Parts: sequence; structure tokens; C-alpha cells
Amino acid sequence: MDLNADLGESFGVWRLGDDAAMLGIVSSANVACGFHAGDPLTLLGTCEEAARSGVVVGAQVSYRDLAGFGRRFVDAGRAELAADLVYQIGALDGLCRSSGTRVRYVKPHGALYNAAVHHEPHADAVVDAVLAYDPSLPILGLPGSLLLRKAEKAGLRTVAEAFADRAYRPDGTLVPRTDAGAIVHDDVGQRMLRLAHEGLLEAVDGTLIPLRAESICTHGDTPGAVGLARAVRRALEGAGIEIAPFVR
Amino acid sequence: MDLNADLGESFGVWRLGDDAAMLGIVSSANVACGFHAGDPLTLLGTCEEAARSGVVVGAQVSYRDLAGFGRRFVDAGRAELAADLVYQIGALDGLCRSSGTRVRYVKPHGALYNAAVHHEPHADAVVDAVLAYDPSLPILGLPGSLLLRKAEKAGLRTVAEAFADRAYRPDGTLVPRTDAGAIVHDDVGQRMLRLAHEGLLEAVDGTLIPLRAESICTHGDTPGAVGLARAVRRALEGAGIEIAPFVR
Amino acid sequence: MDLNADLGESFGVWRLGDDAAMLGIVSSANVACGFHAGDPLTLLGTCEEAARSGVVVGAQVSYRDLAGFGRRFVDAGRAELAADLVYQIGALDGLCRSSGTRVRYVKPHGALYNAAVHHEPHADAVVDAVLAYDPSLPILGLPGSLLLRKAEKAGLRTVAEAFADRAYRPDGTLVPRTDAGAIVHDDVGQRMLRLAHEGLLEAVDGTLIPLRAESICTHGDTPGAVGLARAVRRALEGAGIEIAPFVR
Amino acid sequence: MDLNADLGESFGVWRLGDDAAMLGIVSSANVACGFHAGDPLTLLGTCEEAARSGVVVGAQVSYRDLAGFGRRFVDAGRAELAADLVYQIGALDGLCRSSGTRVRYVKPHGALYNAAVHHEPHADAVVDAVLAYDPSLPILGLPGSLLLRKAEKAGLRTVAEAFADRAYRPDGTLVPRTDAGAIVHDDVGQRMLRLAHEGLLEAVDGTLIPLRAESICTHGDTPGAVGLARAVRRALEGAGIEIAPFVR
Repeated sequence: MDLNADLGESFGVWRLGDDAAMLGIVSSANVACGFHAGDPLTLLGTCEEAARSGVVVGAQVSYRDLAGFGRRFVDAGRAELAADLVYQIGALDGLCRSSGTRVRYVKPHGALYNAAVHHEPHADAVVDAVLAYDPSLPILGLPGSLLLRKAEKAGLRTVAEAFADRAYRPDGTLVPRTDAGAIVHDDVGQRMLRLAHEGLLEAVDGTLIPLRAESICTHGDTPGAVGLARAVRRALEGAGIEIAPFVR
Repeated sequence: MDLNADLGESFGVWRLGDDAAMLGIVSSANVACGFHAGDPLTLLGTCEEAARSGVVVGAQVSYRDLAGFGRRFVDAGRAELAADLVYQIGALDGLCRSSGTRVRYVKPHGALYNAAVHHEPHADAVVDAVLAYDPSLPILGLPGSLLLRKAEKAGLRTVAEAFADRAYRPDGTLVPRTDAGAIVHDDVGQRMLRLAHEGLLEAVDGTLIPLRAESICTHGDTPGAVGLARAVRRALEGAGIEIAPFVR
Repeated sequence: MDLNADLGESFGVWRLGDDAAMLGIVSSANVACGFHAGDPLTLLGTCEEAARSGVVVGAQVSYRDLAGFGRRFVDAGRAELAADLVYQIGALDGLCRSSGTRVRYVKPHGALYNAAVHHEPHADAVVDAVLAYDPSLPILGLPGSLLLRKAEKAGLRTVAEAFADRAYRPDGTLVPRTDAGAIVHDDVGQRMLRLAHEGLLEAVDGTLIPLRAESICTHGDTPGAVGLARAVRRALEGAGIEIAPFVR
Repeated sequence: MDLNADLGESFGVWRLGDDAAMLGIVSSANVACGFHAGDPLTLLGTCEEAARSGVVVGAQVSYRDLAGFGRRFVDAGRAELAADLVYQIGALDGLCRSSGTRVRYVKPHGALYNAAVHHEPHADAVVDAVLAYDPSLPILGLPGSLLLRKAEKAGLRTVAEAFADRAYRPDGTLVPRTDAGAIVHDDVGQRMLRLAHEGLLEAVDGTLIPLRAESICTHGDTPGAVGLARAVRRALEGAGIEIAPFVR
């Protein structure tokens, strides 16, 4: 099983998250590309540390929205969005090259992640960008999303992820962050263990949802992200499940 | 002899320069990388057109200064500037990959070009960035500048350029843009022909300066840039000099 | 009748529109505030020229989207958008104070203009911002829009405008820009004369729509904006209608 | 004696400093204006809290440099810089109006603060901006600096400040931040008490420097800023010195 987290989310003087600690826990790092977070020097440091730790780097691409941290939908056209994404992947890949590693997958961030679940031009734009930049790069995303379906159709490898700390509705969608019970605090390790062993995740109403995930996301922006990631890793490793990146 | 010009200098709704026309004249295109100009969709279009026209693409890297078009010195530290430059080269290279070409050289823009002539940390930062990204990329710059000297010492290929429309002082430096006689309007073709044949350029006081240049810059931002570039190309070709990129 | 146009839409080295010419024709200038266009020095020049010409300045507020020229919907929250708008109004008002004038009304730009026609939180945000900054400022907008209805309810003065060069559907809404017949090229002067005299505007199917407008917008971003504005002004003045700002 | 600190330095998702705590201690708040820090919603909250706490708001104006937090010199021209500063003062004043207060003074931030000590065009630009926006606003700055001298000559009120936690050289200039002993950790309260009572400050070599300051700056960006500010306030109040803003 792969563990992924969002990293490189500082900008200039502003620090966010504990990249060094997370890089000791996860196997894949979704590194920001400068459009929602991440000044180049910060990103370089994160890529270098990832390379040293043997953590795989993915490009976490976003709308151009530093002020909103990429969490606001921006109604960009398909072609301009695709170009923005290629720009970001290339930029991060440049910093990876400087660090002795490379961008190995792509994951959309924030509002783009959510839009690509159902918004046709933006799902297309992500697929366009990966096809244009390097069709060997897998896309990490929500199982069943429009993005992953389109990516598969286009011949790209897709990797489905589950969220360690997010509550699910019986239909497999996430409880929105604005709802009270959106974040799961308890038994996160056990939940993820069941997911890994049985491919099942318990929804808010107790329903067991079938969910095949190759990666578990431990959100970098949740308070206590480091503790959460560590708990998931311990639970999985304690049960003999190896934590390893989905790309080698 | 190579002819180079600055391209990709539009941003969003704002258009600048006539990229399509220039790509029919020059052999090397210094394409902006988004920090002083160039939104990704514009840059993609410029890279695609360059690829179609057989024009070589270079990354024209800059300070982060959209409001000042990269023409204002920014007192960045060496490490942060180097990371900014790697980010830009990688970003443009990504758009080039989408266009069936690649970044083949690096040229600093505007205030960074001028600073790298004498400013040690910024000259170092350009060299650091090229070494880190791809040490096979040549640096295009001012003959005799600190940048080219440091680049050579670091084992990088350097390419010296002359400016078609700029007046030179007897010591080989440029007459500053703020001075009255900074721009040369007449006999530009003949001046460049003499440069190509004899390695000599006439300074403002009539002195003949020895100047070995592998490339001639026809500034994109000079009014009448297209006409100037065409005049230089015609003069050189009329004398049997082949216009060809310095990288193959 | 008032004539308004969008001005101050240059940014740094990039020029857009002919502010000087338009300021000789219109009575009200919707001046950009830096979030979709307008660097401070450009804006200062536009405000100074407006003051000299006796043209009233309004703040044309926008989403924070320089790369998209404010033409892309950004899903900002009501409170953050309202703060962004107050910031913009204040900034432009500062430049107006330096120019011997003041911001005298507010008009949303681009995607925010369109959103505020029906999008509740963004219509609210515009009203919130004007109430917070200066409730004596009128809001210029689309007749019948959610924005103008909410503004009236909040006790603000509203000013309805008609578009000189845009085609209307029989229900009084605009033909979208993406449609073939979106722009009206002929008889613009006569159309606006009828509007001024009879309060009627001919829709694309020939229907006469009742439309009470205190101001006519001659889009700055339409090619031939200056000619259009001049044609409208001449038609109205030729018929004895005085061109005068809606605020004194 | 006045106590001032830098506030409003968060941006979007990134938080910096403890504005609420500092507003319980200082009498004057240098609030960022969006060019080096401060998104409008954050700034609005800071202004509202300042108004509630009876703390006077000043505009802390900066170079346009979010990535560098305004700590990098930017070689802007006098006119463009002055326009940038008027824009910022106006923007913050707008948010102040929404908060029931107003901008009551101006203080340059970071690299602009340092440049204005000796750099003629940038000192002029600050004076130009205040003259243009509102000549009744005092400028807070370094005693003896070119900025304060020019401001006085222009008829503006100037307010000299001392730094609570910075080491001074015998000539009254600050020990640069890059030097080991730049920050004073001990006896800060006693140092400031002596300054208040005797107008004397001890330099690094023990020399007593005469320094007349109307305000004491307790840098918001120093680690432990809240504790420092509290220590200075207690020392002064314990000696019967009233903490009160320099503008009423």
C-alpha cells in the first residue's frame, strides 16, 4: 500500500506543514507546483529531501490561485488550464532534476481535484496535460471520478486513493468539509487496515463501501497530519502490510 | 550566424510583439518563462510555432516581476534566484515537450541580463541553475560579462551575442537605454555584416571594437523589431552568410 | 444620458485601449482597480486625465485574476470577495485623491458582472462592499439583475445601463459573446437614440424590449471601441440629448 | 511613549504573527497593505480588531514582492513606486473605513524601510505618496534617515522610532540582521526605559547613543514578539510612563 500526502505548501516567508516529518512516513509526496503554494526554493528543498528519503514525487497541480490556496473553483478554459498544468509539471520536474529525482505522477489539488470528479473540460485538461507532458505518468485521484475514467480511456495509468481522515457517504462520495462530520478522528488506523485487507470502508451510516485503493491520502492540511499519517503507517505495518510507492 | 529575438512576451489578454512574423526571420527564440511575461497558453503557442518553423527555443529567464516586465533589479539571494530560474527553465521545457521540441539554451532577460554582467551572486545563480537543470545547455549573453566568464569556468558552453540596434561605447559596453543615442537606426544591416565578416563593430565615437559574436540579437521590444530583424537577415544572406541556430 | 466605458486596462509594459481618446467621449469611466488589470501608475494617469476631462471615475472591481483579465468566474466566498472589493475601491480612491477627484460609483467587471446578475453570494458581496466603503456610491449594472435588486433593497442608488454594441434576446438578456450574433455593428447610434427617446431596444428577433437605462456602455474591449463610442455620442447629441454623468 | 508592531502579515491560508495578542499590547499597528503580505480579508479583521482595541492603524507600505515578503530591494522608478504606495495606502484606508477607523500614519516595510534611509528616489517616492494621499499623515521611520529629513522638508510630520530588540552601532545605525549580534535578547525593558527617560540607548560597544524616539518598534517577525512587546510595555508602565499612540 502507498501512503501519500500534500507537501511543499509553504510560500516565501510563510511556512505550512512539516515536510521533513511527513517525508519520514509517506511513500509518495504530492508536491505543490507554485500555483496554489510553493515558492521554488521551498519546492527544491522538499524535492531534495524526498529524494534523500526515497519518497516518490508527484506534481500536485492547481488552478492559478495563490490567494485562495487553489481551493476556489476557477472557470478556466480547457486549453488554458491544460497549458497551466503542463507549465506546473515541467517546473516541478525541473526542480526534481536538480534534486536527483523526477516527477513520477500527477495529482490535482483542492478545487481542481473536486472539479475533475465531474467537470468535463477540467477533467479533460488534466488528461491533456499528462498526455502532452509524459504519458507514462500515472494520475492519482478519486476512484470512479470522471478524471480517472477519462484518463483510463486515454490510455493513462490511474491510481485510486482513499482518504484516511475523511468520512464517506454510502455512495462512496466524501462528506463535504463544510459538514460537521467531515473529518474522521477515531480508529483511522483500523479503518485503513480494513480497506487494505478487505477493500471495504465504513460510511457514516455504517454501510460498508467497496473501495479499491492503491494509495491512502493523509491530508497535509489537517491539523495533526503527522500524527494521523504515523498512525496509519503503524497500523498497516503492524499487520504486515508493506508501505511502498505505487511507482517504482 | 544565428539571429535571436525575445518572444512569448504577451500575458493573458495583453499582446506584445509579433511572434509569428519573428519566427519567420530568426533562428533562435528567447522565449519568456512566465516570471516577467508569458502565460502558459501563449508560451505553448510560441513553442509550437517555433517547432514548426525550425526555430530553436531558449529559456529567457527573469526575476519574478510581472508588473515591471523583469526590467527592475530585484535583490534576490543566490539560492532563491537559482531555484526561481530552474523553475522557469523546467516550466518552459515542459511546454516545449508538449510542442515536440525542447529548451536548447538559456538567456537571462532584462534587469537580470544586466545584473549578470557584473553582479556576482546573480551571475552565479544563472550558472547554478543551468548546471542543476542540464549542463549541456549553452548560455547566451554579453561577451566579456561576468556571467559568461563564470559559465566557462564551470564548464558550460557560452554563446556571445551582439545587439543589432544598440549603440556601443568604445570599451565594448552598451550605451544605456536612457541615453539619447542608445538605439542605432541606420545601416544596421551593414554594421552586422561587418561584425560577421571582420568581427568589428563601430562604437559611437567611430572606434572599431573587436567583437566575436555567434549570435545577433534583434530586440523584440524595439519598435519596428520585425523590420529590423528582416533587414539584418537580408544583409547577411545577401552576402552569402547562412542564418542558422548555434545549437543543432 | 451618460456614456460609460472600461478604462485603465493596461498593466505594466502591456497597453490596452486608448484611454485618452475615450476620455474625450464618455462621461463616466469605469477604471480598473488592479485585480484584473491596471498597475497603479497607469491607473493614476487615467484618473488624472479623467479629472482634467471632467469625466466621472467609477471603480470597476473584479475577481483577483490578472491572468484571466477577470473574465473567469472564481468561486470566492462572500466575505473574502467583499473584502477584496473594498480593497480595490479604496486603492482606486486613493489614486483618485492624488488626482483631485474621487471614486463616484462602482461597477463590477467581467465574470463578476455576469455572476452578480444571478449569483447570490457574489451579488451580496458587491452590495456589502459598497455599504462598507461608502453607501452614497451608486452601483452601475444590468437592469433587472439580482445585484441591482439587492442594492436597491439595501438602500443603495442603482444605475441601469444598456450596451451599445451587444445584441439582446427578446427577454432582455444579452446574446452570449460566444454566439455568432453577439455584437451589433450597424445602426448603433440609431439604436441608442431610440433607447434614449422611447426606452426601447430592438432584440435579435425584432421584438422591441422596454429598457430604462441611465447610462450606455461602449465596451472598451471591443475592437473599434473609440469609433463606436463616438458614433453613439454623435447620434445622441445630434438629437439634442445631453451627454452627462449620472453622478454630479 | 508609543509602542508599534507589524501586523496583518498573514496571506490567504498562511498565518503569521499573533495579531490579536499584539493588539492587546501596542498602541500603533503597522498593518500590511497586500504588496508584501496581507490578503484583504485578513487585513479587514486586523483593522476591525485594532478599532475595537483602540489601537491606531498605520499603512505599512512595501515593494510589490509577495514572494520575498518585501525584504528584497526592487529597483522601481520614483513615479511608479509612489503610485504603488498611494494604491496601498488607499486600499488599507478602505478596509479601515469598513472597520470604523482610518489609516493614521505611514511606515515603509522591510527593504523599502532600509532603502528609504539613504536611497533618494525611494525616499522621495514615500514622501510623494503621503503628500498625494493625505499630507496630514505622519511618517514613522528611522531617526536621521533621508526619508525623515525629506519628509520634514516637505512639511510632513515625522515620528522617530527605536527598535526594542535590535542592536545599535555607536553611530546610531542598526547592526545588520545578517550579523551575529543583531538581536538584543536581554534587558530589553531596561534599555527602553532608559531611552524613554534619558533619550539614551546603549550601543554594542557600550557607547551611549542619544536617540529621541516617539515610538518603540517591537518587531512582529521576531520569534517571541509577543513576549518582547509585553516586557517593554510592563517596564515602561511600571515606571509610570503612559503607553499611548503618537496620533490621537
